[in-house]
Amino acid sequence: MRRPAYQNRVTKLREKLAGIPSDTLWIMRPENRRYLSGFKALDTQIDESSGSLLITEKDALLVTDSRYTTEAEKQAPDFEVMTHKKGLQESLPAILARLGTKDLGFEEDFVTWSLFRELKKNLKKSSSPIRLTPIKGLVDKMREIKEESEIKAIEASADLMTEILSEVIPTLKPGRTEKEIAWQIEGLAHEGGADGLAFASIVASGPNGALPHAVPTDRKIRGKEPIIMDVGVKLDGYCCDMTRTLFLGTPGPKFRKIYRIVFEAQQRGLERVLAGVKSTDPDTSARDVIKNAGFGEYFGHSLGHGVGLATHEGPRLSPEKPVKLEQGMVVTVEPGIYIPGKGGVRLEELVVIEKQGPRILTKDRHYYDFTD
Amino acid sequence: MRRPAYQNRVTKLREKLAGIPSDTLWIMRPENRRYLSGFKALDTQIDESSGSLLITEKDALLVTDSRYTTEAEKQAPDFEVMTHKKGLQESLPAILARLGTKDLGFEEDFVTWSLFRELKKNLKKSSSPIRLTPIKGLVDKMREIKEESEIKAIEASADLMTEILSEVIPTLKPGRTEKEIAWQIEGLAHEGGADGLAFASIVASGPNGALPHAVPTDRKIRGKEPIIMDVGVKLDGYCCDMTRTLFLGTPGPKFRKIYRIVFEAQQRGLERVLAGVKSTDPDTSARDVIKNAGFGEYFGHSLGHGVGLATHEGPRLSPEKPVKLEQGMVVTVEPGIYIPGKGGVRLEELVVIEKQGPRILTKDRHYYDFTD
Repeated sequence: MRRPAYQNRVTKLREKLAGIPSDTLWIMRPENRRYLSGFKALDTQIDESSGSLLITEKDALLVTDSRYTTEAEKQAPDFEVMTHKKGLQESLPAILARLGTKDLGFEEDFVTWSLFRELKKNLKKSSSPIRLTPIKGLVDKMREIKEESEIKAIEASADLMTEILSEVIPTLKPGRTEKEIAWQIEGLAHEGGADGLAFASIVASGPNGALPHAVPTDRKIRGKEPIIMDVGVKLDGYCCDMTRTLFLGTPGPKFRKIYRIVFEAQQRGLERVLAGVKSTDPDTSARDVIKNAGFGEYFGHSLGHGVGLATHEGPRLSPEKPVKLEQGMVVTVEPGIYIPGKGGVRLEELVVIEKQGPRILTKDRHYYDFTD
Repeated sequence: MRRPAYQNRVTKLREKLAGIPSDTLWIMRPENRRYLSGFKALDTQIDESSGSLLITEKDALLVTDSRYTTEAEKQAPDFEVMTHKKGLQESLPAILARLGTKDLGFEEDFVTWSLFRELKKNLKKSSSPIRLTPIKGLVDKMREIKEESEIKAIEASADLMTEILSEVIPTLKPGRTEKEIAWQIEGLAHEGGADGLAFASIVASGPNGALPHAVPTDRKIRGKEPIIMDVGVKLDGYCCDMTRTLFLGTPGPKFRKIYRIVFEAQQRGLERVLAGVKSTDPDTSARDVIKNAGFGEYFGHSLGHGVGLATHEGPRLSPEKPVKLEQGMVVTVEPGIYIPGKGGVRLEELVVIEKQGPRILTKDRHYYDFTD
């Protein structure tokens, strides 16, 4: 991203300060941090942060520890980088006093219960009257609507994944293991310049395909059975996510039928991924196809989710909690049917909602026409 | 691990129920979940759990969603697997009512503020009088003292890493990039049957070595400069962690001196990694060597940390918050000196505390004798 993009985002975020009690926003979630500042570091684990942002009407701080100071200064030149010595909770009261904070907004979906309590205790110890107010999805909501440059970045990520698949698919043959294929994908992602995988590849053959989140095993793939490949890379920070179900030979009538139903469900779902429509609509349309075909109980998950700096983000395309879909959102549409002990079929596209309708970002066309 | 190991751990955890207000423990942290049940799934992200345990005096439930039911049943046969349909928070009140819970202990370092609030709200809605009580490090503390089979697992992990290093080091030569070397390590980890890396490899050459958490770049390694390799694999769930600083030619007097100081600091630190000693002691011993040599300001991080199912766990060997070191703990000892713009030296061993003293688990011996 160019620097002005970051500056614009901070400006937009500041405009939101007027509508909430907080005068200072404390941003810890790595994707939100990166979105606003350009600071790329990830966190080692939930209780080991590589830094956080403090944003007020006029100040923009990036508070980190000595391990990250140099990177932070280089990657986030619009932010004043402060290095704390004794842990963030210990240092925050003094920093907030300097900022003149009266009400600190914290990310309620990311801050742990103990971090909240520690901070509260430390503020009390320093006799600080600062209030702590939860903020929910302020930056996350901004991230749901992608900028032009972000859509390009996601498309580039999907293009790389398409290239990788077109290299891998011709090499699939009976006897290769799921793990081998997953590793081949990882190697090609590396060669293609990806930051890494967006998530651990799913290569699930035969009965393993009945587990929607299967981990690749030493099972050898065979002819005629469905092989689910749910894969994505991360390129310049942006993720992609796509699923194809492949067969090494023409499957029997049952999986031909299931494949047709899932494909039909995907098409009906895609048609409803429109600006102004409720996020539950595409799920209902797709789910109805599967239900009406008698496979309702074999489709247990939601239809899709947003994709961007994170593989899973808003909006969710699920049967519940409707929100309005908007132009610039990037979502997956991924219905599936999973028959325990037998196998599954899932077909996933990644689309951006444009004025005219959904535009598919995954150019791969490895679909079958199983019309009987 | 054999099944009885899991059963013993649950029994030990149950013994702790007597000393706390909670009658039901809610275990969400993936490593704790695996430690108690054998359920191996990871979480996609902090707000996307693959399941949690509910343990009472007589019940042991694993609550998950349909994506993970089959794996959960296979991997955690001692637990009753329950599949929720509408999200954990929504389902918990009914499950807790069935268990007869009066006080639910939740992991305060893992449960987010919003998850806590949601659960509280849902309990209220169902007119449930169940209290929520934070638990801190109950299972994490158990994990700090490794069982014999766990030490073997960590040692096997360290052995694989040693093998990988002994394959990589002879191939280091000027002109290869940090990224290439990091990828070579990842490939060998895969070939060696690792679950994956324990953490993203650090290969930091020349000035990049001054960043303790450097990310591999396209920089080509050169003769005479220090190259920090901080690497670890995960094997059967268990991590290892080791650091060597390598040179392609004999370095100049400055880095020879720094290397000697760091090595000396490591030795002094290792001597104090003893059962019964305070966790701050090894840090002080190592840090004093570096301070006395005039490099105190260039050693900003703690001396070490526990390693097991997680790469970073308790106990911490830091200058603060002393705890007593005990037999069976597995910790790193990793002093370093980092000169901004020039480079760094870090030397890290992984040791288990035995009755007789520390036993080094990393058999690699790529050290230099830079005695002048």
